[in-house]
Amino acid sequence: MGNLTLDKVIRRRKSVRMYQGREIDKEILKMIIESSRFAPSACNTQPWRFVVVTDREKVNMIFEKSLGGIVSNYWARTAPVFIVACAKKSVLVHKIGAGLRNIPYHFLDMGAAIEHLLLKAAELGLGTCWIGWFDKKVIRKILHIPKSIDIVSLISIGYESRKSEQKPRQRLELDEILFLNQYGEPFE
Amino acid sequence: MGNLTLDKVIRRRKSVRMYQGREIDKEILKMIIESSRFAPSACNTQPWRFVVVTDREKVNMIFEKSLGGIVSNYWARTAPVFIVACAKKSVLVHKIGAGLRNIPYHFLDMGAAIEHLLLKAAELGLGTCWIGWFDKKVIRKILHIPKSIDIVSLISIGYESRKSEQKPRQRLELDEILFLNQYGEPFE
Repeated sequence: MGNLTLDKVIRRRKSVRMYQGREIDKEILKMIIESSRFAPSACNTQPWRFVVVTDREKVNMIFEKSLGGIVSNYWARTAPVFIVACAKKSVLVHKIGAGLRNIPYHFLDMGAAIEHLLLKAAELGLGTCWIGWFDKKVIRKILHIPKSIDIVSLISIGYESRKSEQKPRQRLELDEILFLNQYGEPFE
Repeated sequence: MGNLTLDKVIRRRKSVRMYQGREIDKEILKMIIESSRFAPSACNTQPWRFVVVTDREKVNMIFEKSLGGIVSNYWARTAPVFIVACAKKSVLVHKIGAGLRNIPYHFLDMGAAIEHLLLKAAELGLGTCWIGWFDKKVIRKILHIPKSIDIVSLISIGYESRKSEQKPRQRLELDEILFLNQYGEPFE
């Protein structure tokens, strides 16, 4: 299912912040996470673990107790499902290696894996929003996530409400982000 | 150009560690970076900046001086082009916000943007390898990257040598990475 070209999906994906009440089929949710399996990772450690939250009570608890504060995520009240993206850190790669090079590899890996699932969701007609501002401790408690597992991001997912259809956001131009052979040199 | 479905591209992408001598057309390189423009980022900060290194002398310097050490990247000597993925950090999002939530948002953003370009390269028949083990200081010097810009990853890119064609690596099964409503609970 889903049959769009890469370019079309990349350009279709956007942050969706208001959802219809409609539920998401479990098979659809599996296809979405399935796409993350194929992301690359440092030394193929595949740190990603996903808890998909469909239980109405837990969805409400996540909204009420882990979102809010300085950054308001009040819009997320309409999300029918949350995906909690977690990372199982490898001692060698994510602790020793990352420390030596000052690069938190598992966040790069998770960024790639999460992006796969956002793209797949967009292809299947679902809207998502990648949420970085949430209370980890509360989520850990609600979903019984062991201390050895890092909680990296929260993703809201659902069918977009027609009331709030938004266009994708503005982007920097290519010549602002692409340089040739030296930082700041135009590519052509 | 490029016309594959998302699923096909996601399954085709793999790490390629031996390249043909063949050069890469500049228009192709632009299309590849163009795909990264559309990645999501925390508060739409779009931290990504890419230095594409095609100059033979600089490519050689990167290989000789920034790779190697504990982790050998000797295979990278055949790469005709390197892409240096950098991040311009926002004070509000990437310093204050990241500190408060203990999540380095710009690494997640960069992971997503880099994955876009790896997928686009795969669609266009190019092989890539995402390299995390390199000497940042050396790269900074060779490419005159300002101190305000963080160097996040190095990506080798080229047409795969037929001598070394590899299959994609093994993956965890879906039931090892996907849980329902609670960490460790089977999805079905």
